[in-house]
Amino acid sequence: MKTIGIIGGGQLGRMLAMAAARLNFRTVILEPQADCPAAQVANRQIVGAYDNPHALAELADACDLITYEFENVPVDAAETLALSRPVFPPPRALEVSQDRLTEKEFLASCGIPTARFRRIDSQDDLEAALGAFGGEGVLKTRRMGYDGKGQRVFRKGDDPAGAYESLGNVPLILESFVAFDREISVIAARGVDGSFAAYDPAENVHKNGILHTSTLPAAISPATVQAATSAAKAILDTLSYVGVVGVEFFVGADGALIANEMAPRVHNSGHWTEAACVVSQFEQHIRAVAGLPLGSPARHSDCVMQNLIGDDIENGLGQSMPWFIFMARPRLGRAGRWGMLRS
Amino acid sequence: MKTIGIIGGGQLGRMLAMAAARLNFRTVILEPQADCPAAQVANRQIVGAYDNPHALAELADACDLITYEFENVPVDAAETLALSRPVFPPPRALEVSQDRLTEKEFLASCGIPTARFRRIDSQDDLEAALGAFGGEGVLKTRRMGYDGKGQRVFRKGDDPAGAYESLGNVPLILESFVAFDREISVIAARGVDGSFAAYDPAENVHKNGILHTSTLPAAISPATVQAATSAAKAILDTLSYVGVVGVEFFVGADGALIANEMAPRVHNSGHWTEAACVVSQFEQHIRAVAGLPLGSPARHSDCVMQNLIGDDIENGLGQSMPWFIFMARPRLGRAGRWGMLRS
Repeated sequence: MKTIGIIGGGQLGRMLAMAAARLNFRTVILEPQADCPAAQVANRQIVGAYDNPHALAELADACDLITYEFENVPVDAAETLALSRPVFPPPRALEVSQDRLTEKEFLASCGIPTARFRRIDSQDDLEAALGAFGGEGVLKTRRMGYDGKGQRVFRKGDDPAGAYESLGNVPLILESFVAFDREISVIAARGVDGSFAAYDPAENVHKNGILHTSTLPAAISPATVQAATSAAKAILDTLSYVGVVGVEFFVGADGALIANEMAPRVHNSGHWTEAACVVSQFEQHIRAVAGLPLGSPARHSDCVMQNLIGDDIENGLGQSMPWFIFMARPRLGRAGRWGMLRS
Repeated sequence: MKTIGIIGGGQLGRMLAMAAARLNFRTVILEPQADCPAAQVANRQIVGAYDNPHALAELADACDLITYEFENVPVDAAETLALSRPVFPPPRALEVSQDRLTEKEFLASCGIPTARFRRIDSQDDLEAALGAFGGEGVLKTRRMGYDGKGQRVFRKGDDPAGAYESLGNVPLILESFVAFDREISVIAARGVDGSFAAYDPAENVHKNGILHTSTLPAAISPATVQAATSAAKAILDTLSYVGVVGVEFFVGADGALIANEMAPRVHNSGHWTEAACVVSQFEQHIRAVAGLPLGSPARHSDCVMQNLIGDDIENGLGQSMPWFIFMARPRLGRAGRWGMLRS
């Protein structure tokens, strides 16, 4: 019986561990926080920092292969592990997705449209780029941003003075605004053998920068579905990827796609696959990294997934709903939980 | 967050623990075998015998309520626990299902037809009963039999001499043969509030006394579906039951039902609910015992579940099938594992 190592002990790791258990794999979680959500359903936890060499050696020792639940796994750690064990998705996918500039450049290299972007390493860079973008755009840290943190929005006439420093004197990127009608995401998988499977795109609504609902089917044309799926396949093939990826897109009024970002992991906008598909994204990821044939991503039901935040669950939006199916523990230190509405 | 105690650490306990985890409950497993299948996905295991008073006290201490995964939990243990914590299903359900005679008498008291049966406490009882049944019937131990063990079949002309002793001088029951076209089972649930939900009956095929496949839908009439569902409801209501029950029936050529046996737990012939229903029998059981509203038992797909025995999985009948979805560890000491075919 194979043992799968999972770096990261939050809610996605928990769901991966449960999917692995159903397929009869053992799991070992590497996570600094003891009794983390994933460890509670896993065979074992190694309590240690993601970049602790002893913890990493112990993980490699205990496991036949290694995967991860979040995109901020240190690339060095993944590369070290990859010297002795298969690490899927490949460390290169971490490198690409940890840096917004590298990510945009990578997407462009795959022929996938993105917002216009500029590398910003100084206040001068910022002012020049704003000039080029008509005084508008979103300034973001290149690394470690999520849910709208580490960002600053410029509208025409805003004064950029001091802005570079205010974000911490770190490498930044300026992105142009994108006009869009809706947001979608595609969850897709690639097997060790290069096989490919994509779920139907979900239509996502965010509130205050946090995912609020994912609705299936999305109100998009078959051509847009096809374009989003092809983009996901290009990303996976280019990276010789193994596992599940989530790719977010903006959809213009004409149905044209602009890629927003990619996450080399099971995705928050893909929890609905557990309720509405033959094989969930979690099982699909485990199948892929373990070298099993990919499962069917076919969707058997329409559905709406709603993100329950903090006390929503205890306040009656969760367990009291007959159609509520699961709520995972929040990612360490964050308040998001997940509910699922079934139509 | 509530903690649910589960007595028994085998494959059904494992699936219950995973269903509980998805609903954000903690679980504690009571099981004498360390590192048992259920404990691997639970928050904690108490290693101890099912009737160890210290282990039971520790379990009650650690949990808000207690359930079980198998019908041979000592009734005394369940009753002791029930003094301090809710125990669901009720201990009376264990009492009824642990003894084939009590079970048949109980079913009859619910107005549910069974095979003819006689209590056998001696060789004389046996010979008298065989005389009354035309020399034919199945002699069974009243307690602890499963999968055809502890049984002896009599055909016309067979010599019963020494038969009572050969089954161990224990209380026995003689059951008449039943002519039937097919076997079905109904998985149903009753909530704390008396609400009721039943899954579609599965058509079961046994090989060598062991479940081989369960097929949905069963080839039976709506009237037979209704009769089976009503019988399950009568059982649950009579016992003021809380949780999931499995009831097996023989179906005659005319569609008439003969109840075979009931199990006060999630059922081996109900694994398919995890693949083909909105809410699985495992989640349904946890919902019921935890006092949540019952979920929908609606079936969204037809399916065939196949029981993979021993090495079937490693021999390629398991993980290599793209449509194979889960395999649980075998019940302690037994070889059965489960696969699922989806149509």
